[in-house]
Amino acid sequence: MDITALRTAHPDHWMKAAAIRTLTLDAIHAANSGHSGMPMGMADVATVLFEKHLKFDAAAPNWPDRDRFILSAGHGSMLLYALLHLTGYADMTIDQIRNFRQWGAKTAGHPEYGHATGIETTTGPLGQGIANAVGFAMAEEIQRARFGAKIVDHHTYVIAGDGCLMEGISQEAIGIAGRHALSKLIVFWDNNDITIDGKVSLSDRTDQVARFRASGWDVQEIDGHDPLAIDAAITAAKKTAQPSMIACKTHIALGSSAQDTSKGHGALTDPKLIADTKAAYGWSAGPFEVPADIKTAWDMIGRRGAAERTAWETRLAGLNGKKRDDFTRAYAREVPARLSAVIRALKKQISESAPSVATRKSSEMVLEVVNPVLGETVGGSADLTGSNNTKTGDLGVFDIDNRKGRYVYWGIREHGMAAAMNGMALHGGIRPYGGTFMCFTDYARPAMRLAALMKIPTVFVMTHDSIGLGEDGPTHQPVEHLAISRATPNTWVFRPCDTVETAEAWELALTSKETPSVLSLTRQNLPTLRTAHKSKNLTAQGAYVLADATGKRKAILMATGSEVEIAMAARDLLEAEGIGTRVVSMPCWELFEEQDETYRRRVLPAGPVRVAVEAAIRFGWDRWLFGQGGKREKSGFVGMHDFGASAPAEVLYEQFGITPQAVADKVKALLG
Amino acid sequence: MDITALRTAHPDHWMKAAAIRTLTLDAIHAANSGHSGMPMGMADVATVLFEKHLKFDAAAPNWPDRDRFILSAGHGSMLLYALLHLTGYADMTIDQIRNFRQWGAKTAGHPEYGHATGIETTTGPLGQGIANAVGFAMAEEIQRARFGAKIVDHHTYVIAGDGCLMEGISQEAIGIAGRHALSKLIVFWDNNDITIDGKVSLSDRTDQVARFRASGWDVQEIDGHDPLAIDAAITAAKKTAQPSMIACKTHIALGSSAQDTSKGHGALTDPKLIADTKAAYGWSAGPFEVPADIKTAWDMIGRRGAAERTAWETRLAGLNGKKRDDFTRAYAREVPARLSAVIRALKKQISESAPSVATRKSSEMVLEVVNPVLGETVGGSADLTGSNNTKTGDLGVFDIDNRKGRYVYWGIREHGMAAAMNGMALHGGIRPYGGTFMCFTDYARPAMRLAALMKIPTVFVMTHDSIGLGEDGPTHQPVEHLAISRATPNTWVFRPCDTVETAEAWELALTSKETPSVLSLTRQNLPTLRTAHKSKNLTAQGAYVLADATGKRKAILMATGSEVEIAMAARDLLEAEGIGTRVVSMPCWELFEEQDETYRRRVLPAGPVRVAVEAAIRFGWDRWLFGQGGKREKSGFVGMHDFGASAPAEVLYEQFGITPQAVADKVKALLG
Repeated sequence: MDITALRTAHPDHWMKAAAIRTLTLDAIHAANSGHSGMPMGMADVATVLFEKHLKFDAAAPNWPDRDRFILSAGHGSMLLYALLHLTGYADMTIDQIRNFRQWGAKTAGHPEYGHATGIETTTGPLGQGIANAVGFAMAEEIQRARFGAKIVDHHTYVIAGDGCLMEGISQEAIGIAGRHALSKLIVFWDNNDITIDGKVSLSDRTDQVARFRASGWDVQEIDGHDPLAIDAAITAAKKTAQPSMIACKTHIALGSSAQDTSKGHGALTDPKLIADTKAAYGWSAGPFEVPADIKTAWDMIGRRGAAERTAWETRLAGLNGKKRDDFTRAYAREVPARLSAVIRALKKQISESAPSVATRKSSEMVLEVVNPVLGETVGGSADLTGSNNTKTGDLGVFDIDNRKGRYVYWGIREHGMAAAMNGMALHGGIRPYGGTFMCFTDYARPAMRLAALMKIPTVFVMTHDSIGLGEDGPTHQPVEHLAISRATPNTWVFRPCDTVETAEAWELALTSKETPSVLSLTRQNLPTLRTAHKSKNLTAQGAYVLADATGKRKAILMATGSEVEIAMAARDLLEAEGIGTRVVSMPCWELFEEQDETYRRRVLPAGPVRVAVEAAIRFGWDRWLFGQGGKREKSGFVGMHDFGASAPAEVLYEQFGITPQAVADKVKALLG
Repeated sequence: MDITALRTAHPDHWMKAAAIRTLTLDAIHAANSGHSGMPMGMADVATVLFEKHLKFDAAAPNWPDRDRFILSAGHGSMLLYALLHLTGYADMTIDQIRNFRQWGAKTAGHPEYGHATGIETTTGPLGQGIANAVGFAMAEEIQRARFGAKIVDHHTYVIAGDGCLMEGISQEAIGIAGRHALSKLIVFWDNNDITIDGKVSLSDRTDQVARFRASGWDVQEIDGHDPLAIDAAITAAKKTAQPSMIACKTHIALGSSAQDTSKGHGALTDPKLIADTKAAYGWSAGPFEVPADIKTAWDMIGRRGAAERTAWETRLAGLNGKKRDDFTRAYAREVPARLSAVIRALKKQISESAPSVATRKSSEMVLEVVNPVLGETVGGSADLTGSNNTKTGDLGVFDIDNRKGRYVYWGIREHGMAAAMNGMALHGGIRPYGGTFMCFTDYARPAMRLAALMKIPTVFVMTHDSIGLGEDGPTHQPVEHLAISRATPNTWVFRPCDTVETAEAWELALTSKETPSVLSLTRQNLPTLRTAHKSKNLTAQGAYVLADATGKRKAILMATGSEVEIAMAARDLLEAEGIGTRVVSMPCWELFEEQDETYRRRVLPAGPVRVAVEAAIRFGWDRWLFGQGGKREKSGFVGMHDFGASAPAEVLYEQFGITPQAVADKVKALLG
C-alpha cells in the first residue's frame, strides 16, 4: 500500500483518520493487548462516515433521532473509543483511552453497552452487531410510521468483518433485512481478507456480494481507503430502497509491517513497529497526543449535529401531548398506569372463571389486553405463531407496506430474532417480545446472554416447555433449559402455573427496565390454581405459599409451572392420609432469591420434608432442597433425569414418574 | 396439481411413491399428530433416489461404504420411516409404523439416531442435518484418501426444507462445503414455498439458487414431482466437482385438499381428507397396507445394493492387515492399546518436569503424542487455531488438494463446526475434536446438545474458560457455561487443573463410546500439581483427594481447573495456622457422580467445613456443598456472582475475590 499517496491525496482526511490509527496503536501498546488491525484498516471509512454522514451530537449522545453506529466487529473497539474521544463525548476522556482494557475503565476489551455513551450495543461475539442492527432499523421504521418522519428519521450504520459474515446469524440478519427492505440499514463490510487463522480463503470463498444480492440487498464495492469513494457510496446507499452493503476493500493494520497479515489482526505492541508506522503516517505527536488542529477538526464533527438536534427537540416539543408522552415514556422504559389495571382486571376475571388453558394460551390472553395499552410492544415468532400464541388481534403485521405493523414473522431464525429484538430494545422506544419452542433456547442463546449482559428487558416467550409437548420427542423437549437460563446472571426465568401467574409474569417482564425475561410456557392445558383473586402480584416475590397444610405441616412441595398442578394433587393425597402438606409455587427463583431472608424462611421453613417437582433435570434445585433451611436427608426431587421421549404427554408423565402418586410416595418415604 | 397426469405419466413410479404418501397419512392419522405435508411432497424425490441412486443394502444397514441419506427436515420423519419399512430394514416393521410417535416405538416424532437402523442422525432442530452432512462428506473424503476408493467411495444425500435454509447454521454449512468442494454432497431442497406461518415469502425472499452459487455450489432447478428430471439431476450432480444443490419445486401435502398450504405442513388427520387423497392417488389398499406388487418392488430396491456390498466386503478382506484393523477398529470406536501407553508416558514426564503451562497448551502437548497413534482423530478450530492449541505437527491441513489432512480450518463458524463434527462421528471411522473459546459454547449449543442426545463422543475443546482470559472482557468470559454443559444429560465436562489431569481427561474423551466431552481449558499458565506420578487415571473417578490435611481434618476445599492452584495455596495458609485442610480436585462432576457412595463419602466425608472454589457462578455446586455429607451452615463458595469484566486476569481474580486468602478467610469464618 502506498501510504504516501494516500497521505498526499487527501491530507486533511488523512490526518483525521491517522488520529484514530495512532490512538489505537497507543492504547493497545499501553494495554499490551487488543486488536490493532481493524481500526487501522477501517479508519478511513469511519472518518468519512462521522464527518460527512452520521447524524449525531456528541453533546447529546442519547438523542433519540440520532443515527446509530454499530461496531459489529467489536474486537476493533479502539475504533469506536477513538471516534468517541475525538468527537468529544464527555465521558470518553483521554484517560479512558489510556486505561484501555483496565479495571474500572469504560474502555473494555470489547464495547460494552452502558459503559460509555455512544456505545449502542455490546459486541464481540461475532455476528451479533449486524443482527442487532436489523432490530435497530426495524424499530426506526416502526417508530417513524407511528410518530412521523419529523420525529423519527435516522439511519443505522454497521461495520462488520469477515467473522461477522461467516457466523450463521449474519445470514438470518441479511435475510430479514432483505425481506423487509430495511433501506435505512447500511452495512460496511471490512473486506480485508484476513482472519485470525490466516487468509479468509483458508476457510471461506463465498462471494459476499452475490450472497447479499441474493437476499435483496443493494451492494457497492469500493476502495475502503479512498475517502471520495466512501462518501459517494454512502450517499448512494442512503438513496436505495433496499438495505445496503458496501464492500470496502481494506488493508488490515494499514501502513504497518504487519499489514495484510493475521498478525496484524491482533495486538501490535512492538515499539519499533509502532514508531515506524507512525512515521509512515506522517504522525509526529507523542503517545496519546492529538495535535490541536486535528482535534479541533474532530470536535467540529462532534458538534456538527447540534443544530439539527435542537431543531428536532423543538419538533418533539410541538408534538401533541399524548404522542409526545408516549414517545418519551417508552424511551424511559416506563409503562402507562393502565397496564397494571388491565392485568389486575384479567387476573380477577380469570380467578372467577377459572379456565383450563395452556399457559401459552394464557400468555396470549394477557397480550390481548396488554398490547392495546402498551403501544411500544412489538411481538413475533420464529415461524411458530400459532404455537407460541404471540400474535394478538390489534398488532398488525410489520411489512414493507405496513410499517405500523407490530407483529414480525421472523421466519425460522431464532437467533436472528433474539438479536434483532435486542436491537429494538437498545434502539429505545420499543418493548420487543418473541416466541419459539423453549428447547430452541439453544439457538437463541448467544443473544439471550447478551440481553442479560447489556441489561435490556427483552422478553423471550418460550412455549412447549417440557415433556408436556409430547410426541415431538426429545429434540423438542427441554430438560436442561430452565437450568441454562437460571444459571445466567441477570435473567428472570418465569414458569407460571396458570393464567394468573402468567399475567403476573408478563407484568413483571413488561415493567422490567434492566432484566430480560424468559417465559416458560406449556403446550398442554393447566387448571386455574389461583382462584382467590389477589390484586397483589404474588409472582413478584418469586415464590409463595399457594396452599398450606390444613393440620400440622409435615411436608412442603415446591413446584413450578405445569407441575404445580401435580403438587396440588399430591397434596390432596397426602392430606387425605393426614399428612399436612404445603404447596409452594416458585414461578421465579431469581425474584425469590432477592426477597429478604425472613420472607424466604416463612415460605420455606426448616423442619418439614421437602419435595421439588419439575419436569426438568434437578440441576440447581439443591439450592432449595438442601439450602434455605432444608436437609438433604429429608429432601427429594421428582422430575427428569435424562432426555425425554416421543409419546403423548400423559404417557410421558406416567412413564417418567412425574405424577401426584409419585410425589406423595416420595414424601412418605422421606417421612419414614 | 394434476394428480392424474402424474399418475399416468409414470405409473410404476407413482405407486411406489404413493406407498410413502399413504403410509404417512395412515401413521399420522393413527398418532393424531405429526407432519404429513413434507413426506407427501418429497416422496417422488426420495423414491427416485432410493430406486436409482442410493447405494445401500437394507440387510446390512451399517455397511460402512453405504451412501448416507440425511433427512435434515426431520419433522418429515414418516418419509424416512416409510422408506426404511418399504425397502425392508428388519427393525422397521409395519408395527413400528403403526406405533408412530408412541412410547417405546422406534418411530419417534423426529428421527432419533440409535432408535432404528437407517437413521443416520437425529434431526428436527432445523439446519442440523445439512450441517451434519458436511461432516459426513468430509469424513468420506478423509477416509477415501486414507483407505482408497475401493474401500471408501460413497455419497451423502440430504433433504433440506425452507426451515433448514433459513437457520443460520445452514450458511455455515454451505460455506464449508463450498470452500472444500465436497463434490459428493448432494442436497435436495424441498422448495415448496410453505412454512408453518404461511408462505415462505412472509419471512424470506432469498434467491436460494444464487445464495448457494455464491458459495461455490453447483445448482440445478427441477420439478420435484418429475421422476425423469429427478433422476437426471442426481446423475448430473454426481458428476460435478462441487457440492450440489438440487432445488426441487414441490407441492406440500401433494394431492390433498391441504396441498400448498401451511395447514398441509402439519398433521392431516381428517378421515375424509385422507380418503379423498388416497382416492386421488388411485390407492385402494386399507390403512397400513401396501399391495404386494408395490411392496415387492420396494423390497427389490432394498436388496439392490447387496451384491455391491458383498463385493466391498471381499475388498475389505483383501486390504492389508494393519489397514483393515485400523479401519474396523475406528468404526467400532476402539482405540489402539498404545494410546494409554503414550498418555501414561506423558503423565510421568510431566509429573517429573512439572512445567507451568496453560491447560490449552497442556492439551496441545497431549494431542502431540495422541494424534500420531490415533489416526482417526480430526482436529480443528473455529478460527482460533493458535489460541485453542488444537493443531499438532503431524495432522496436515484438510483441503481440496490434501484430503488426507486431518486439521480443519473451520472459519468463524462454531455452530457449523460442532454440527459437522457430529456428522464425522456419526459417519464412523473418525474421532473429531474442535476448539473455540468456552464462552462460545453458546454458539455451538444446539449441536452440543445433539451430540449428547445421540450418544456420540464428539470432543469440544473450550479454551479461555474463565475470567482468567483477562482483557477481552465479559463477552468472552464464561461464567455460566460450566453449568450449562453440566446441566446437559450425557455430557462429560472436564476442567483439568494441570497437564496431568488434561492428559487424563483426553484419555477419557478419546476412549468414550457414547458420551461427548467438553474440555474446559485455561488461557493462563498453571503449575503442575500432580507431581507424584500415578499410572492410574485419577480423573476417571471424577474427583479425588489431591492433598490431604496433615493434622486433624477441619476443612475440605473443592475446586476445579485453574482454581485448584488457589485451593492449594489456601491450604498452605490454613495448614500454617494449624487448620488441617484437604483439597479435592473435581475435574469431572459427572464421573464423580457415577462412583459408588463409599468412594464419594471417602473423598467428601461429613464433618469438616467445605468451601468450593471455581471462577464461575455457584449454580450446581450446592450438590456438593450441601449434599454428599455437607451442611449448609458449614459450606461456602468462592467464585463469580455475576458477569466478568475487562482487565488483566490477575486483577480480575483479586477484584472478584477469588484468592487463596479469600478462601482461607471463608474457611475460618465457617469454623467460627
